[in-house]
Amino acid sequence: MIITLTPNPALDITYRIPRLAPGESHRVTDVVERAGGKGLNTAGVLTSMGRRVVALAPVGVEGLARFGADLESRSIPHRLVEAPGVTRRSIAVVDESGVATLLNEAGHAMASGVWQGLVDEVQAAAPQARVLTVSGSLPPEAPDDLVRSLVRVAREAGLRTVLDVSGPPLVECLADRPDVVKPNRGEAAASLGGRSAATPSAGELALALSRAGARAAVVSDGAAGLFLSCGDVHLRAHLSQPLRGNATGAGDAATAALAADLDDAGAIGAVALDEVATETWSEVLRRAVAWSAAAVLQPVAGVIDRDDVDRLLPTVEIEEIHA
Amino acid sequence: MIITLTPNPALDITYRIPRLAPGESHRVTDVVERAGGKGLNTAGVLTSMGRRVVALAPVGVEGLARFGADLESRSIPHRLVEAPGVTRRSIAVVDESGVATLLNEAGHAMASGVWQGLVDEVQAAAPQARVLTVSGSLPPEAPDDLVRSLVRVAREAGLRTVLDVSGPPLVECLADRPDVVKPNRGEAAASLGGRSAATPSAGELALALSRAGARAAVVSDGAAGLFLSCGDVHLRAHLSQPLRGNATGAGDAATAALAADLDDAGAIGAVALDEVATETWSEVLRRAVAWSAAAVLQPVAGVIDRDDVDRLLPTVEIEEIHA
Repeated sequence: MIITLTPNPALDITYRIPRLAPGESHRVTDVVERAGGKGLNTAGVLTSMGRRVVALAPVGVEGLARFGADLESRSIPHRLVEAPGVTRRSIAVVDESGVATLLNEAGHAMASGVWQGLVDEVQAAAPQARVLTVSGSLPPEAPDDLVRSLVRVAREAGLRTVLDVSGPPLVECLADRPDVVKPNRGEAAASLGGRSAATPSAGELALALSRAGARAAVVSDGAAGLFLSCGDVHLRAHLSQPLRGNATGAGDAATAALAADLDDAGAIGAVALDEVATETWSEVLRRAVAWSAAAVLQPVAGVIDRDDVDRLLPTVEIEEIHA
Repeated sequence: MIITLTPNPALDITYRIPRLAPGESHRVTDVVERAGGKGLNTAGVLTSMGRRVVALAPVGVEGLARFGADLESRSIPHRLVEAPGVTRRSIAVVDESGVATLLNEAGHAMASGVWQGLVDEVQAAAPQARVLTVSGSLPPEAPDDLVRSLVRVAREAGLRTVLDVSGPPLVECLADRPDVVKPNRGEAAASLGGRSAATPSAGELALALSRAGARAAVVSDGAAGLFLSCGDVHLRAHLSQPLRGNATGAGDAATAALAADLDDAGAIGAVALDEVATETWSEVLRRAVAWSAAAVLQPVAGVIDRDDVDRLLPTVEIEEIHA
């Protein structure tokens, strides 16, 4: 089983209007709300691929019922830790040509007991689980070492870790050797800013993250694909033809695929990552690109279609890179 | 005392960001929330002028605590009728030059018991009150005759009515002879669309509303001022110099001033409106323009400053019009 932790979930609100005109007043009749956040998207993708998962997130008491009902309706098992007040909103204003304008609230500071509540939930779920994912931003005033301490809690509980985080939380936890880190290129570059040359490539960033402590580093770079560095293995995986669609949630689907393979004794789940052969990593990356591409074909984040995955898997190209 | 009823309140959310760029992603760190809706703004203005008021509104159970706390903090007495689910949002995205882009959700259908709950609250408050205001839009699926039945309930309870509503709810209640209707020019024109010539003036619209049944009709027309028709009295009142500022809530302040004068035995509150002399109406309109202008000077709707009112009153010009 996979535990997905979302430190800063959001109520995703989509407004569909004919046209967004700055300075004008718009009446909005088409409003869709959904429990959102990168880790909840990852849990949704895993659920749609038939994987066992439990989604953990702190949710403001005013939104608990709504979050719970939405996750229930999508059959995503979850344990929501009650936080005071409200949960941040993330508003997508989508016009009739499909262009989305995003307004993402930064979020609200959590009471410190909330973080201990999440650690308790990780420890409670750990005996049934093999992998912990941590995805997305942290709320304001979250402890600097939150992700690092989650990596330690996970190790003590026998869980492997996949982290889709960036900035100081990513940099600070590398010394504790998380199993897989998966930032995108921009996040990785910003996180490593002080250490790397200007505008490093995704492959260079993966190598730098790996050298800084990640057992495996996967850096996503949009249509250019995924770049892996793990020990002596350096690979790029990408679609032979780029896809058009909704990129929101594509990275969360890649995180889901990596977590699913770490959860499988038959793939990379049973061995030390630096002993995994290039051929095995190639298949892991192939799945991650296919899941990610399948997410691009969906109108909303947090779900993929198995038929799309099956169709896309043979179209993924793998190449060794020399970092 | 004045009862203000807001059939379709909104959680007013203000996002301050440097610039709104359609198609882009914006991180929002400056978020202000407030209990909003035209009737709540009217109640706020009356409170800031020291008038006794009780604000009635249906509020979704998820937002009740927040609405109550905000009204409490602004010392606005209120009775919120619990509705299922959530309350609509009205989002103002304000850029650094002060330009506001509004996204107003239409709202959610209310359970029918909610309307009876509001009628019960009106009847409960009526013995201490003299005036009922009804302001703003109705939620989807609200009964067509809701405003009309509120006018009847008010009359039976001995209350006079000030209505800032538009469209069918305005048109349908005119036959029941509400005391004062106060749409703006655009709303009045749209409401009377089938009956009037193209692009009628505010004065013509006030006359039409009066002839259709309103005992007094006041039509606001932005900087052009307020236009009254009541029996044989036809007046225009406006500032000698237009003001720059925040027009949101200016109409709600005019409604508040009209309600305050109806609440006063010394002004128009003790006599039949068609017996009110032109001189008295002139003073009523002078106050309404001054309160409205004072609202323009405030950064948020729902509050005015007495000193602004005192300073503005002598700058209001009144003229008789011939409709």
